[in-house]
Amino acid sequence: MSDCIFCKIINRELPSTIVYEDDQVLAFRDINPAAPIHVLVIPKRHCANILDPATVEAGLPAALFKAVAQVAAKEGLEERGFRTVVNYGRDAGEAVPHLHLHVIGGRALGWPPG
Amino acid sequence: MSDCIFCKIINRELPSTIVYEDDQVLAFRDINPAAPIHVLVIPKRHCANILDPATVEAGLPAALFKAVAQVAAKEGLEERGFRTVVNYGRDAGEAVPHLHLHVIGGRALGWPPG
Repeated sequence: MSDCIFCKIINRELPSTIVYEDDQVLAFRDINPAAPIHVLVIPKRHCANILDPATVEAGLPAALFKAVAQVAAKEGLEERGFRTVVNYGRDAGEAVPHLHLHVIGGRALGWPPG
Repeated sequence: MSDCIFCKIINRELPSTIVYEDDQVLAFRDINPAAPIHVLVIPKRHCANILDPATVEAGLPAALFKAVAQVAAKEGLEERGFRTVVNYGRDAGEAVPHLHLHVIGGRALGWPPG
């Protein structure tokens, strides 16, 4: 989508620090990190959110899970652990209407998660 | 797995309040809710966690995403929003070694998510 900032990051129209990339997925650092490591994992094909039917097409959920595992390995999160978070709507503070999984780690994370 | 409490819930050897069920997935209420609505979405086939290779087999990620959408609809979370959380390892406070997605809503959720 031409006015989507994550689509612009995918198309290299906006800068980002890319951590992982494959055919279906891009992962890059959040510009407002909530922890020492905070990476956003997004589909290259625009999906609005976790309730968008497009999210479950073409093996995308598996591609997203595999990308989370790749990011965890590259960022050294496998031993200490990490949290994966997906926000939907107002109560969750969803900020960008392009599906993104937050991969957050590098410190102890409290509970409840917000 | 015979000593896994979530496998025992799936097999009805332990009680739970079931919210949604299909061939691959069970969803039930967390007994220590972090918000007015707190549902755990788990695969019926035992997978240890989000980094377990079994997690990405047999269309399971798509089944989990679809189940999250079903839970959100049944619990009336589509309008206000909700947060989906997956913990891995010590830093995230992962408590049960059977993959589970927390679906949390019913109140405004803060940031950072823990």
